[in-house]
Amino acid sequence: MKLIKAEIIAIGDELLYGQIMDTNSHWISQQLDLKGVKVAHKTTVGDNRNDILDAFSQAEKRVDLILITGGLGPTQDDLTKPLMAEYFGCPIVEVPEAVSAITEFFKKRGREMTPLNTLQGHLPACCEYVPNPAGTAPGMWFERNGTYWMSMPGVPHEMKRLMNDFVLPKLPEIFELPVIYHKVVKTVGIGESWLADLIADWENALPDHIRLAYLPSLGQVKLRLTAFGTNLIELQEQVEQQISLIFPRIGKYVFGYNEETLETAIGKLLKKSGKTLALAESCSGGYISHLITSVPGSSNYFQGSIVPYHNQFKQEILGVKAETLEKYGAVSEETVHEMSEGVRKIFHSDFGLASSGVAGPDGGSEEKPVGTVWIACAGENGTVTKKLQLTQDRLLNIQLTGVAVLNLLRVQLSSDDK
Amino acid sequence: MKLIKAEIIAIGDELLYGQIMDTNSHWISQQLDLKGVKVAHKTTVGDNRNDILDAFSQAEKRVDLILITGGLGPTQDDLTKPLMAEYFGCPIVEVPEAVSAITEFFKKRGREMTPLNTLQGHLPACCEYVPNPAGTAPGMWFERNGTYWMSMPGVPHEMKRLMNDFVLPKLPEIFELPVIYHKVVKTVGIGESWLADLIADWENALPDHIRLAYLPSLGQVKLRLTAFGTNLIELQEQVEQQISLIFPRIGKYVFGYNEETLETAIGKLLKKSGKTLALAESCSGGYISHLITSVPGSSNYFQGSIVPYHNQFKQEILGVKAETLEKYGAVSEETVHEMSEGVRKIFHSDFGLASSGVAGPDGGSEEKPVGTVWIACAGENGTVTKKLQLTQDRLLNIQLTGVAVLNLLRVQLSSDDK
Repeated sequence: MKLIKAEIIAIGDELLYGQIMDTNSHWISQQLDLKGVKVAHKTTVGDNRNDILDAFSQAEKRVDLILITGGLGPTQDDLTKPLMAEYFGCPIVEVPEAVSAITEFFKKRGREMTPLNTLQGHLPACCEYVPNPAGTAPGMWFERNGTYWMSMPGVPHEMKRLMNDFVLPKLPEIFELPVIYHKVVKTVGIGESWLADLIADWENALPDHIRLAYLPSLGQVKLRLTAFGTNLIELQEQVEQQISLIFPRIGKYVFGYNEETLETAIGKLLKKSGKTLALAESCSGGYISHLITSVPGSSNYFQGSIVPYHNQFKQEILGVKAETLEKYGAVSEETVHEMSEGVRKIFHSDFGLASSGVAGPDGGSEEKPVGTVWIACAGENGTVTKKLQLTQDRLLNIQLTGVAVLNLLRVQLSSDDK
Repeated sequence: MKLIKAEIIAIGDELLYGQIMDTNSHWISQQLDLKGVKVAHKTTVGDNRNDILDAFSQAEKRVDLILITGGLGPTQDDLTKPLMAEYFGCPIVEVPEAVSAITEFFKKRGREMTPLNTLQGHLPACCEYVPNPAGTAPGMWFERNGTYWMSMPGVPHEMKRLMNDFVLPKLPEIFELPVIYHKVVKTVGIGESWLADLIADWENALPDHIRLAYLPSLGQVKLRLTAFGTNLIELQEQVEQQISLIFPRIGKYVFGYNEETLETAIGKLLKKSGKTLALAESCSGGYISHLITSVPGSSNYFQGSIVPYHNQFKQEILGVKAETLEKYGAVSEETVHEMSEGVRKIFHSDFGLASSGVAGPDGGSEEKPVGTVWIACAGENGTVTKKLQLTQDRLLNIQLTGVAVLNLLRVQLSSDDK
């Protein structure tokens, strides 16, 4: 089977000047990788005739599929369409279907259409018109000597719509592609090198057609298994079989698969068990509540939270004892213990979570340097606490506290689940 | 003055497969733009000999400065160094200074050094060794026929260190560059097209050497003024003069300049006036508290917050009246009014902010569709409320509520400030 190669060409001065981050190319890369198409080049050029034509001819020499984003606005700065017409040697003609789609687009939104917008429905005669339901610049599909070209607008949600509706489904029709099966195993509470040590022998024994990638992110490590072959069902079985081999070793760190996040995983566990949750966030300052309430339907299990940013409120609202704060300080096992139990009572919830720490950059001491954080989880079977020693960076400390607190709850919920 | 052109070449399979987002190229673009160097091309290639050599020769034909990132690890996959030696036709030799810097790097961190690490101190004989205090792969600086080349590691903080310490200060020495002055005016509470209408005549009358860019982001619009010339003090004065012309029209929307964020701006206003703040967040679920507490030193003015995710807690904790909830519902002017005053009392704060709304995707009704949000700001001079009609997207609704609530407070603080 021939390896199909692609090139992504992003067009626009704003990308070169650093005004806009090119997230399109990254997303397209990921989608093509999932389909078994190899992205061999990415090129970014400005709104400049020679540079664009040069990028076209370079790309045509070396790849089978060329995906172009940007340079399709209604103004004169936008050169992609006229230059594609020139490059392919065909005139720009009115495409009545495209003009009426654009007219309809404006009508639906009650917005006025300018003559320039009408011209967006005029396309090179040698391309296939691809409707863009999310915007006014149509997609354009070309083929010449076995190389396929797609031009799309640079607005991310319009580009994604054209990729999802048209390009990605078309790939298996025009190319002979390998069948690929991906599965991402998501872990928390273990570092990348420890995880790698745990499964080193298994990784070395993986068959050639199954690839493993470690994708670390904030306090979490994802394991991505990719299997290449000809039969999807077989690949799926083989990947599941491989995962079952390591599950006894790493299962306790696994919180989900593929698109699952720690907060959606916890939501599912809470819903399943019919339990509810409340939070007392000192150093995390509302961040964990935000994570939890970002999940649609979280009101089914989330009762509420309190951010007591001063000791006075840890006492007045949460009922932490004055002696505790005086004797052990706000950043202590004893204080988070009382905070978690206090917030559980106030919100009549099954679980109460708490955080208290020195987020930084100021407020550290020799005994409790910046990055010292205590967390707690109170439940009907008692209260567990944990000390974290994090970084010098305030935002990172807040985020890592969030992961650790959610994982503390996950471990409780998972052990209840057994 | 000749326009100096640059090309960025990013090397690595992980960039093409979409495993890693190339944030380096974006950052480098921004830095070069600030220096008056025009980035004309960006190229990304994989760990492939021919593709890399081809990228080198294409770049050398068209630009004055070539910045290369990635492909400098200690393993055999990393091709940048041997291919640069091959391209420039010179052998790789031991650079004792580089070897001892790497040895020192490992010694300081108590980590063991492998023979492969020692080889990182061997460099092409025709390059200038550039120390990398943040890592083990040195920078390499080349010059040939008036084109300058810099090779840097792909790890972002190492690349930034080499750019900041070596490349950026070198540019004015090797090239004749224009003097550039940038200033970003940050606005909130007005849409891009309304803002553009307000200042259209001024924009059209801007002198040729001052450029304006609109940079919209979540609920905010930034105006970036860029002045080109030969004398920094003069440019600075001219830009300030231009801003003073529009300030009477747009001043009430301006919350800061350059790196200022809405939450740091509010922090400054609160500190200056010695006032304190508390929040009652229903639909925003802790997000606004997180924004505020992300700012170092926020404990000076932030007292705390309550996230009452059910009506019961709006009553029990915040003291919202049962009649109010029954008669008007949780998403109402009356409820946020009482929430903001309640939370102000509980935390003994000067200001109390509140949000309540239908974040979605569920929970909407004909009368109160998804995206309906009420916000309030209670202070010593009374309570102001505002209704927002936002989007269908849960996360976006949470974020836009955050901007609107912070802006409500900003307006109060700014009018107190006068």
